[in-house]
Amino acid sequence: MEAMIWENSCLKLLDQTQLPKRVVYLWCEKYSDVIDAVKRLSVRGAPAIGAAAAYGLVLGAQSAEENDLSVFKSKVNEIADELAAARPTAVNLMWAMERMQSCLHSSRAANKDEIVSELLEEAHCILRENMQGDRQLGEYGTRFIKKGARILTHCNAGALATAGYGTALGVVRAARENDLEISVYASETRPLLQGARLTTWEMMQEGIPVTLITDNVAGYLMARGMVDLVIVGADRIAANGDTANKIGTYGLAVLAREHEIPFYVAAPVSTIDYKTVSGESIPIEEREWNEVTSVRDAVIAPEGVQVWNPAFDITPANLISAIITEKGIAQPVSKEALQFK
Amino acid sequence: MEAMIWENSCLKLLDQTQLPKRVVYLWCEKYSDVIDAVKRLSVRGAPAIGAAAAYGLVLGAQSAEENDLSVFKSKVNEIADELAAARPTAVNLMWAMERMQSCLHSSRAANKDEIVSELLEEAHCILRENMQGDRQLGEYGTRFIKKGARILTHCNAGALATAGYGTALGVVRAARENDLEISVYASETRPLLQGARLTTWEMMQEGIPVTLITDNVAGYLMARGMVDLVIVGADRIAANGDTANKIGTYGLAVLAREHEIPFYVAAPVSTIDYKTVSGESIPIEEREWNEVTSVRDAVIAPEGVQVWNPAFDITPANLISAIITEKGIAQPVSKEALQFK
Repeated sequence: MEAMIWENSCLKLLDQTQLPKRVVYLWCEKYSDVIDAVKRLSVRGAPAIGAAAAYGLVLGAQSAEENDLSVFKSKVNEIADELAAARPTAVNLMWAMERMQSCLHSSRAANKDEIVSELLEEAHCILRENMQGDRQLGEYGTRFIKKGARILTHCNAGALATAGYGTALGVVRAARENDLEISVYASETRPLLQGARLTTWEMMQEGIPVTLITDNVAGYLMARGMVDLVIVGADRIAANGDTANKIGTYGLAVLAREHEIPFYVAAPVSTIDYKTVSGESIPIEEREWNEVTSVRDAVIAPEGVQVWNPAFDITPANLISAIITEKGIAQPVSKEALQFK
Repeated sequence: MEAMIWENSCLKLLDQTQLPKRVVYLWCEKYSDVIDAVKRLSVRGAPAIGAAAAYGLVLGAQSAEENDLSVFKSKVNEIADELAAARPTAVNLMWAMERMQSCLHSSRAANKDEIVSELLEEAHCILRENMQGDRQLGEYGTRFIKKGARILTHCNAGALATAGYGTALGVVRAARENDLEISVYASETRPLLQGARLTTWEMMQEGIPVTLITDNVAGYLMARGMVDLVIVGADRIAANGDTANKIGTYGLAVLAREHEIPFYVAAPVSTIDYKTVSGESIPIEEREWNEVTSVRDAVIAPEGVQVWNPAFDITPANLISAIITEKGIAQPVSKEALQFK
């Protein structure tokens, strides 16, 4: 199941808000369609939104009407800034926009159409590298997986989140391909239930044994000795290894250490933000109250209740056993270990 | 708002599954209606189900047709055993049934009607003591509350859970009455959302400031320094202080220690199971998969997904700063400190 397809000069995105109930594609014809899709999480997962935004910039360039090349380029740059601002935490979005802008900047093309072609090639390249990188990352990750391992994961860092093979779930897939007979616990991941809706769905599609739990069950699961390792993705990794990921990740990391269970982060190098010294400086998106007070059409809280809904939290580097990337592994996690060539 | 009323020889229960959307009472005319109400959580919270079962036994005695007094008594005893088995973890249920059976056993009444009257008086007594006990417990608990304290609670250990003043929320209410200007964070408490539906509703009814969070937010809330203490109820406390409470409690206790935040358990002495040596021996109820895969009518997971849904977990005594009861406080928590006179 491909989650992101470039077709007829449009970006076709699997609408993840509708899964697992419906498999529906969204057609993005304008760059603003991509911004909307990112904001309402039709496409989500740090690497996936980076790739989607790259295609979004192609859509923006396609429809920019400025004829003067330098005016056109500055218009495309503005669109890139707009795309980069769609969500604040996942740094892959900014990374992808910088890469596209750099492609634009260094282009020697003589006309708009050629520039658009170059940008499209760069977007394809980002997506392709993402896919290949995930495979490599998955292979690296298998060194941490013993036969029969029971793996807890949070949120969805799978094929849907990366438009590839997955990061955390890429390791799971690679372990499966290496006949390691793994099984997965998926925490449901309130408020938006990416674990319940997406991770279970991905695992069931591939026949990998998966058990769904509420987020509250993780501690008891560990206390009962039912988990061998935890592996999650990341939305942004600071230079020192502090990691922003889906809200609830930090609690899992504290629980894992309490039970002496290894806790791994799997993410492409594009998730590492070398300019951000530590987790304290990572901006944490706070989302709308109604994500918490209702589930689909079901209202679950009194009208008018005050809500605090941060979408991410920060797991300090010292709680992370290793960070697994497509370029190698940082273990123990440190600024130096994260300097991949 | 009274959650449990004896009226016209029937037990009238506020149906907590319908809150906060609808305020609806269930009329229990037969003891089996009470068993159903307990099983499907129309009445929930350890002390409340104890009191409800006491009234349930009165309903059972009222309708028992055996005329021979000793046959009648043994029928009532059987009904008590049936009521006691409605849910396995909350020990107040067994405690209430033992108390009612002891009342039955020691009765010198000469006929069925008199016995029923005595049982009804005992049930009223359980409820009344529960209410008075909660007030006392609340007062004791305020010693741990500084002015302006920001209190995190899980699930609902309020008036609804005790048919009284509340245990954890009894402390909150007492703090409010003592002008301590407290505020509350309610974790939503998946899967059945007692925090989102009931705790917020109770707090809003009384004008106590409350903020709803998903269960995943607790760790980040503590890391950000936004919580001064955690206080929860209990479903069963083993002799050594290990505490069974709503799933997710254990994770909060580990997080609280990590952040050096005090973690309190508030519960009536009837919650202490002196016959159970430690938490390992407390039976943990596992409930149906569909509590996790759907929220009201909204289906949130793929059809056929495997689910693990334990309703409670165990928090070891060493993570609990103090256990607050209506007869005093155990601090530090130990077998000896829990021997209340």
